[in-house]
This record gives sequence, structure tokens and C-alpha cells, in this order.
Amino acid sequence: MIRNSEVSDKKIIDSIRCLGIDMISNAKSGHPGIVLGAAPILYTLFLRHLKIYPTRNKWINRDRFVLSAGHGSALLYSMLYFSGFNISIEDLKKFRKAKSKTPGHPEYGVTDGIEVTTGPLGQGFANAVGMAISEKHFSSLFNIYDHHTYVLVSDGDLMEGISYEVASLAGHLNLNKLMVLYDSNNISLDGSTNLSFSENVLKRFEALGWHTEVVHNGEDIDEIDKAIYKAKINEEKPTIIEIKTTIGKGSINQGTNLVHGSPLKEEDVYQLKESLGIRNVPFAVSKDALDAFQNDLFERIELEYRSWDTMYNEFKNTDINAKVFESIFEKKRTYNIIDMFPNIKDYNNLSLRELNSKVMNVASDYILNIMGGSADLNTSTKAYLNKYGTFSNLNPSGKNIYFGVREHAMAGIMNGMALSNLIPFGSTFLVFSDYMRPSIRLASLMNLFCIYIFTHDSINIGEDGSTHQPIEQLSSLRSVPNFRVYRPCDIKEVIGCWDTVLKDKKPCALVLSRNEVNTLDNTNAYYVKNGAYIVKKEKAKMDAIIIATGSEVEIAIKVSENLFEKGKNIRVVSMPCMELFEEQEDAYKEEILPNRIKKFVIEFGSSQSWYKYVKSKDYMITIDEFGLSGSKEDIYNIKKMDIKSITDKIERILGENI
Amino acid sequence: MIRNSEVSDKKIIDSIRCLGIDMISNAKSGHPGIVLGAAPILYTLFLRHLKIYPTRNKWINRDRFVLSAGHGSALLYSMLYFSGFNISIEDLKKFRKAKSKTPGHPEYGVTDGIEVTTGPLGQGFANAVGMAISEKHFSSLFNIYDHHTYVLVSDGDLMEGISYEVASLAGHLNLNKLMVLYDSNNISLDGSTNLSFSENVLKRFEALGWHTEVVHNGEDIDEIDKAIYKAKINEEKPTIIEIKTTIGKGSINQGTNLVHGSPLKEEDVYQLKESLGIRNVPFAVSKDALDAFQNDLFERIELEYRSWDTMYNEFKNTDINAKVFESIFEKKRTYNIIDMFPNIKDYNNLSLRELNSKVMNVASDYILNIMGGSADLNTSTKAYLNKYGTFSNLNPSGKNIYFGVREHAMAGIMNGMALSNLIPFGSTFLVFSDYMRPSIRLASLMNLFCIYIFTHDSINIGEDGSTHQPIEQLSSLRSVPNFRVYRPCDIKEVIGCWDTVLKDKKPCALVLSRNEVNTLDNTNAYYVKNGAYIVKKEKAKMDAIIIATGSEVEIAIKVSENLFEKGKNIRVVSMPCMELFEEQEDAYKEEILPNRIKKFVIEFGSSQSWYKYVKSKDYMITIDEFGLSGSKEDIYNIKKMDIKSITDKIERILGENI
Repeated sequence: MIRNSEVSDKKIIDSIRCLGIDMISNAKSGHPGIVLGAAPILYTLFLRHLKIYPTRNKWINRDRFVLSAGHGSALLYSMLYFSGFNISIEDLKKFRKAKSKTPGHPEYGVTDGIEVTTGPLGQGFANAVGMAISEKHFSSLFNIYDHHTYVLVSDGDLMEGISYEVASLAGHLNLNKLMVLYDSNNISLDGSTNLSFSENVLKRFEALGWHTEVVHNGEDIDEIDKAIYKAKINEEKPTIIEIKTTIGKGSINQGTNLVHGSPLKEEDVYQLKESLGIRNVPFAVSKDALDAFQNDLFERIELEYRSWDTMYNEFKNTDINAKVFESIFEKKRTYNIIDMFPNIKDYNNLSLRELNSKVMNVASDYILNIMGGSADLNTSTKAYLNKYGTFSNLNPSGKNIYFGVREHAMAGIMNGMALSNLIPFGSTFLVFSDYMRPSIRLASLMNLFCIYIFTHDSINIGEDGSTHQPIEQLSSLRSVPNFRVYRPCDIKEVIGCWDTVLKDKKPCALVLSRNEVNTLDNTNAYYVKNGAYIVKKEKAKMDAIIIATGSEVEIAIKVSENLFEKGKNIRVVSMPCMELFEEQEDAYKEEILPNRIKKFVIEFGSSQSWYKYVKSKDYMITIDEFGLSGSKEDIYNIKKMDIKSITDKIERILGENI
Repeated sequence: MIRNSEVSDKKIIDSIRCLGIDMISNAKSGHPGIVLGAAPILYTLFLRHLKIYPTRNKWINRDRFVLSAGHGSALLYSMLYFSGFNISIEDLKKFRKAKSKTPGHPEYGVTDGIEVTTGPLGQGFANAVGMAISEKHFSSLFNIYDHHTYVLVSDGDLMEGISYEVASLAGHLNLNKLMVLYDSNNISLDGSTNLSFSENVLKRFEALGWHTEVVHNGEDIDEIDKAIYKAKINEEKPTIIEIKTTIGKGSINQGTNLVHGSPLKEEDVYQLKESLGIRNVPFAVSKDALDAFQNDLFERIELEYRSWDTMYNEFKNTDINAKVFESIFEKKRTYNIIDMFPNIKDYNNLSLRELNSKVMNVASDYILNIMGGSADLNTSTKAYLNKYGTFSNLNPSGKNIYFGVREHAMAGIMNGMALSNLIPFGSTFLVFSDYMRPSIRLASLMNLFCIYIFTHDSINIGEDGSTHQPIEQLSSLRSVPNFRVYRPCDIKEVIGCWDTVLKDKKPCALVLSRNEVNTLDNTNAYYVKNGAYIVKKEKAKMDAIIIATGSEVEIAIKVSENLFEKGKNIRVVSMPCMELFEEQEDAYKEEILPNRIKKFVIEFGSSQSWYKYVKSKDYMITIDEFGLSGSKEDIYNIKKMDIKSITDKIERILGENI
């Protein structure tokens, strides 16, 4: 690319660098190393390649850029400022200050131009793979959709297991429009990567089916440019470009971990700016540099944007898929899943995973942009869209993804998909949700609409034993902020869950049993949205309430029937979603769970989340130790979770308290 | 190796296979595919290479074998039975039945000859790396210690991110006595690995610094034997041997996922045994085959064991390190950490991570087998043993491991270290404990003495923002069964924690603040073992109790002082370990937290685990939403966590309730 202005590339890059350094010095906190080391990479990418239109930041067909090395936020904010996004010098001065647009790590929804919240290493790479999957899928459906996904990763990102998982899958899926820019500086927080990281990274990626490029001099923007160009014309494979850089380039401590995570000393900033020929006035950006960069950037982008816009208008007026496209990308769609099942018949002796399969297969006909898969367990979780084929390089319009035995990748990729106009689902056994927690946390932080389908949800899976039997998972998922855990008890509640989930559009887990259940008399799809409701009303003055969830609701009803014969009048409350119940008005809560009445809970998992409603462990039929391998019946008996033991326990406690 | 008996290898292998199949058929549950496919691998390993002495199963210098593909338990139990471990046909008949010696997945401590609990994929591989690290360390210290570590992995194991992390580190550390036997059958649960896994596995391992071998015919025991032999003489690198097998070999459905996870049909068992020439009588093992195998096995092993035993006796009598060796391997050592600090002076204005560093550096002089490291954060967590150098190929006696940015690997490796006579520690930020949960769960399940050191333990880390600020982690770690979470508040409690931890020898986390604390007047190292105790006694009739942990204890005391000025008499209880408090006698619990008194809690994390002691959210100064980037002070103010806001809140609530 021929630049028009007189201002040199170097001058602009150094200005971007120094602005980042000013932010860190001003905040007295941050990571100067990557700012100085990787500035030429971002400069080259933004100036010459990235298809963005900063004043139309939600341009559907923009290229995506993810800073997986989220600690480089100061560099990215500086770059976004130079590019003309809606971010001011005042914002940059508030770097790392409370409620600013420039938090310590990039946060989705907070800052213009930030595509995703990053920081925990490896996650951004996974998100980028999810974005590239979305692109491959949508571009196979709509001829106006066609963009690249770029992600900047550090050595640390590549050490994380999730980065291997997603790279292996990206290679398998031939995600050729995915480009990883690897800031290779041989330094991580504790020192030289020699201490722990001596693999041949490019050979590893070749083994995973990737195209590789090397840039030997990370200061040479033409070399970077050429490598990106070659990556873009590669039509077969995802590309990783290893770019050799010097961490903290220009600092007294360049090339060491001393420059990674603490602000430069004042004298270091002085000598740095001196040597770069930048005025040592904090936040004083050269107008020439800024104008030069923006002029060149907009000159390149303008044409591209206009021509796409023309194409898009034509598409909207003529293409038979235009309505579908708008429906997906303008997010206007509302769902009424309950209405799709006007005559729910009783489904008895079917497991909740099977009932869920039926419901999601009907619902998915109406959810145009649902897409997902399983971490090699769809045969068991039954979460598969029967009509919609397998997503692959040869069939990119397929909607079922085989994630492989890669739970963490699945969750990280789902976040990227959710950020690119898909409604992703991902399934595995509940116990393996542990592998996914870092990504689930980020989905919750970003408030992404991701649907996790977790089956095999208690000790009653039996023979596979303690390694496969979840205990603490329900409680620990309930402890994640801004996350919903649904545990329906029959077909009606499964329908109600899907209805609620699709209206609520928040990160959530559907937790489903493998064992068979029956359709219960008084369950109600419409009440799921309230979080909890009465499924068995007391016949007279009540002695107690049993709260239960999932497959334990049926048990609770049987127990209450047994207790009725013993003269105890028990209400049974199904609580398919604790978080939604917590959001109800006090009056409703008091109506369902009156304060003065004794409450028991039956849930075959940890007690931790139940103390909120239930007085003490004595009133809980829960499990706080690991399970064991055996038949469901034997386990119930050993753990005293069979109907007789539960009935006896509740009767005894009610007796003691009279 | 020349075998003495007349019974062919094939006959014995097929007997092992059929015994495994009988177990699965009898249990009506299990995984026949790997039993049939991988039997020749285990046969060859056990007969010709594995240095084990089945009647002395705790032989210190035995080779370790880990079945990372834990779903192959039936094969391993069959193999152990053939090898003469303490496992009977009756035990095998109880496969997957409650309380048997043969649970659905191998469980450490349940079955003779099982080195580690496996099942969740990738974990066993990590454990094996931990064992190989232990071996490398101990063999550098003691000339009588020298064994190999073998691990059988499936395609699924290799898809998991943790397997990449540990393989990268194993290559870096030149763990040449580690051998991975890769059961390569191109099938996983959902179908062909073509669906999701098309990488070049051996090239990937080469990139990570591994030696590789291929066995083209997994039925050819001589080919397997040669590959293992070549791996053993390799002195530079860990080895992976890809062994091409056919899943479910001999079944009607061989080579497909149909044979992976469900018992063979009756007619399939019939044709299988018919074609193998094995009598179709369940559990009828050919005595000839059994005797032949055991004779050959013991003939090989006997000599090796005797010669080691002679050497060991000589070592015990002559070697200056013998006492150290016995102390480590016979686990007789007891610790009194508190006694090591006879005159604890006040350490003020130091962070808990720094105080912990001081304590663990003193204590580690007495803990001969402590060894550990950090996931690239020791500079921040300060968990580093200053006197003991870095563990590496050149310095295997070093005790500090640079795990790299590989939290999950760190935790999985720690489990293997704990299983091999080390006391491992591993440090990172509390929020990143999420990356380690699957391995932490297994440590808890196996009751392994692993010490996790989690610093940066609340929103008060400030500027790094919500991605780095733990919220739900304290509660969710407390929900893990058989796990202890310690959160000390000053130097005395840190000492008390180490004292308790080393007596208790259970999986535990030390959760430490980054912010500075002062030494408090009434804290007491000796009381940590009680889980909670009074740090500020009420002056007269008390109005309420504030429970606090970690750096919030100092805040609680200040709040109580403010409230005293307002006429409120408040007791402050420090609860450094909730789990230990729960284990105290009722009388003690009532003494510390009398039932009739109102209780508040101050802990800057999720409220979930506190409902046990505290009536409702109104009484909690906890945080159930994500944090934000900013100065500690700003965050405290915004979240109303500053001392004034807390004081006002408690005063208001006490007022309302009078």
C-alpha cells in the first residue's frame, strides 16, 4: 500500500506506543512490554488489512480483531483512538480507573471497537475460532458475508491448553479466514520462556493442519504486511504468523520480564521518548501523525465499505435470503416455544436428555441462528439437531459441530459464536462443566447468550462411578454471577425452560438427568419463568414444604404422598431455576415458600446453595461427599436417597420438632 | 524375551480380553472397545517391561503404570488379576457394583495395583508427568531410585488441552523415562475421529520435543515390545508410541463407535469367543494361561526385585542419605510449624502473599519432600522456595518448577507428584483456580495432599479488573467435597494454617490477599485448627457477631470498634477454615457462634457459602456480581465495601431489628 502522507510509519507507530505508555504511567499500573513490542503489528494490521469502519462500529461484515493477550489493552486503546473509534484522550487518561471506558483489560460492551472481553490467557484465541466458525457458516448462507478474523496471541496464550484444543479444531475445520498473529518475544511474566516453553510452535501448528509464516523482524511493517497478505490468499488452512518482537522495545529493560507488568520508571519514559523523538508531554499526540493515519485508513476502508453497502442494499431488495439475514442480524426475533407445543402429551419413562432432544429439535426450526454441538458426547447427551447436518469444511451450512473431547474449547468457541450473531449450544456431562468454567465465567461477564446442555446430572448415573457423578457442580454453577442454572423435571418444564431461555437471552445451563422420568400432573411450562412454583398443593394446613429440582421432583411427590398417609401435609415446590425465583417479588416468594413453614430440599447434589431456603443440613436431602460406582438403586440405598429413607427422615424431623 | 511356557501369547491375550468382556457383560455396563483393542499393549508391557512385584505392590522403586483412558478399567482389572495382584474372580464379578474393589473407573486406594483414579480424559496423562517429575527428582538424590512411568492414552486423552500442556512441559523438562502408549484407533464416543480430530499427532509431539515411535500392527507384540525397548534406551526425551489398534477387535462391530461404551450383545460375545477359541463360560479362566503368564512374569521380575532389595539394604546401612530417604518414603514425619516461629514479631504493612512466602520458606527447610511451583506467576504469588533452585533437566534436585502458563497441567501434575511421595504446591491467582478444577476435584476424590496457593483473592486487586477479580471462587472451592479452603488474616494465622495443613495432610487451598495487612492483637496460630475462633471479644452483652476471613478480619475489627462508639457491642470471629469449623463439636460451635445471636459476615466474595451461618443477604457484606477495574479505594466505595458503609449498614440493620 502506498501511503499518501509525509508522516513516516515509524513516527505514527512511536506515537501509538508513547500514548500507551502515557496511559500506563498515568494509571500507575499496566503492561508496557506488549505496548512497545507489538505496536508495529497492530499498526500494520489496522492500517493495511483490517476491514473496519470506525464510525460504523457495528458493520456486520467487518473483520474481527481479538486481543487474546488482553493485558495489552493500553496498546489496543491507543490503536482504537488513532483509528477514530469513539474513544477520547480523556478516556485514555482514565485508563484503569473505575467506571471508565478503558478498564484494565478490554471489556466487551464498555469500549467502542472492543469485540470481546479478554485477559485470562487462551480465551481470546478460542473466541476468535468461534467467530471464524460463524463466518464460515454465515458466508455459506449469505453472499454478502465475508470477513477475516484476526487474533493477537502471546507466548502465554499458546501455553494454555485451550489454545491447543481450538487450534486443533480450527485446523480440522479448515478455517482459512482465521489468522493468528503471534507476538513471539520469548518472555512471560516470570522470565524467559526458556524456563518452561521450548517447543517448536510453528511445527506444532503445522501438525494441526495450519499454514505458518514467520516475520523475523517485528519492527519491519512490510515484512508483517507480506505475511498477512500471504495468509489472506491461502485458501486451505488457518494461518499463524510468528512475529519476532522485543518485549518493551526501547525501554531500558527491553527484552526482559521486568518490562512486562509494571509501569516504566519516569527516567525510562524520558529516555524512551527522547530516543524515539517524541515530545515528553503526556497524552500530547502529534496531530500530523493522527491525521496521517486516519486519512490513509479511511481512504482504504471507504471504498470497501461503500461497495459492500451497495451490495447489501441490492441483497436486501432482491435476495430471497434477505429476510432471514435481517432476522438474524437485527436480532428482532422473539420466540414463543410453548406455543409450538399446543398439545403436550404425556411422555413417560423417558429421560430428560431425551425429552430435551425432542424439544430442541422442534424449537430449532424456528431459531434460525442456533448452532452448536457436543464435546464428543452427543450420542449420550442427545443434543443434536437432526435435520441440520454436520458443520464442516465441505458442509459449512451444517449446524452440528463435533467439538471433539475438548470441553474448554467448546465453551470458548461458543463465546465467539455468541459474539457473532449465533445462538450457540454446547453439551457434555454435568461433571465435565468443570473443564469449561473459565469460559463460562467470561460468557457471564459479557452476558452472552450461550446455552450449555449438561446431562448425567447426579449420582444416579450409577455405574460410571465417582469420577463421572457430579456433586458440587450445581452449587458451583449457581455461584457464578449473572448465570442461570435450569433443572427441569419433565417435558412441560423442558418446554418452559426453552421458552424462558429464549426470551431471557442470558448465559444458562440446562441440567438434565439421564434417568427416566414421568410427566407430572401439576407441572406447568408457563411457571418456569418464575423460577419456582407449587407442583403439589397441601390438602389442609401444611406441615412442611419440600423443594425439589429435576428428576427429584417426582421423588418429592412420592415422598409427600407417603407422608400424607402418615398424617403429614406437605406442599411440593419445583424450583427449575433458583436465580429466576430470586428475582421474583417478595410477595410471590412468600406465597410459594412462606417464611413460617419448615422447608426441606431434595436435590442429589451439594447442599451449599440451599441454606438460603432451608434451615440446616438436617432438612436437606442432598449429598456433600463423592458418589460411588454401582446401580442407581444400590447408590440410593447406600446414600439413603431411596424414597423410604427420605420419607422416614422427614417424618422423624417433623416429629422431633413438634 | 524367551517365554518358557507352551501357552501362546495369543491364547493369554485372548483370555485377558474375554475376562474383561465377561466383566462388562455381567455388569451390563462398561467399555468393551478398549478391552479388545488394547489388550496386546497391556500384555506386552506387563509381561516384558513393567517393573512391578504384584505381591509387594508398594515397592518404592516400581514402574508406574497409569491408565489415562480410565474407561478401560475392565482391561486393567483383568490384567491385574492375571499378574497376581490381590484381586479375585469374585472381585471381577462385582465389576461396577457398589462397594466392590472394581468400580466403573479405576479408583486409587480401592484396588490393589491401581496407581491413580482416572476417567476424566487427559488427567491420567498429567498424573504420569507428575510421577515422572518425582522420579527425576528423587533419582537425582538417591541412587536406589530409578523407574519408568508408562501411561496408556486414547484419542480422547490427546484431544484434551491438559494433555497438550503436560506434553509441552514434559518435552521441555526432558522427562526421558516417561512413555506414552497411544492406543490409536481413530474412534471416539461419537464416531470416527475424522469428525473432529485430523491432526498429525506424532508431528505435534515432535514439535514438543518428544521422541516418537509407531507400531503399525497393534496385535503384534514383538513390534510393541521393540518400540518400548527403543523408548527405554532413549536418554534425551519422553517418548510417545503410537500403536495402531482396532477398537473392539473381534467384535461384530469392531472399528466403530458402536463398540466403545456399551456391552457386547450376547451373540457377539458368543461369536467372539468362538473365533478366539475361548470356552464360552463366563469368568472361566484357563489355568494354563494364568500360570504361564504368572510364571513368566515372576521369572523376569524376581531377579530385578531381589537385586534392588539387596542394593536397598546396603543403601540403608551405608548411605548418608538413607535417613532422609526413609523419612520421605515411610511417611513417618510429623511437623510442628508453629514451634519453628517461637517469637513471632508483628509484621505490619505486608501482604498475605508475602507473609506466606516467609513462612513457607522457613517451613520448607523441614519438609524434605516439598516441591512445587507456579503457573508463570511466582513473581506475583511469591510462592517460591528461595534456597532450593529451579527444577530442570540440568538441575533435577531443584525444587521450584516453572509450570508455564499452564494452570491445569500444574494441578494434574501435582496429583501425580502427591502420588509419588512428594508434597506438591502450586500457585496462581485465585480467579484462575477455575482452570484447575477438574484436577482439584480428583485430588479431593483421591484425598491427595496437594497445597494450592491462590493469591490476589478479591476485588481489592483493583486495576486488573473483573477478569482478574475472583467472586464465586471461594464459595465454589468450598463446595468441593473433601477439600479445605484456608483464608488466613495475618502472619499468625498463616503460620497456623501451615501447621494445620501439614498435620491434616489433605487437599487444600491457601487463599491469600495481595493487599497489605497488619498483625492483629488476638489472632492465634494454635486456633486455626478449630476453623474459627474469637479475635475480638465483646465487652458486655453482645448485640451481634461479625464473622470475617482473610484481609477482611482487620476490616471487621475496625467496624466493630466504630460500632462500639455507637453503643453496639460486637464480637468478631475469624474463620480461617470453614470446613474445619464444621468438624468441631457442637459445644464449640455454639460457644463461638451462639445460635441466638445475630450474625454478619464480611467476605469480599460470593455469599453462597455463608447462608449456613448468616440469616439472609441483608446480614452479609459479600459480593454476588462481577468486580470492576479501578483503584481498591474506588471499588470499595462503589461496592459499599468501605469501612464507613459497612459500619452504617450493620448499624442500620441492628437498629431495624430492635
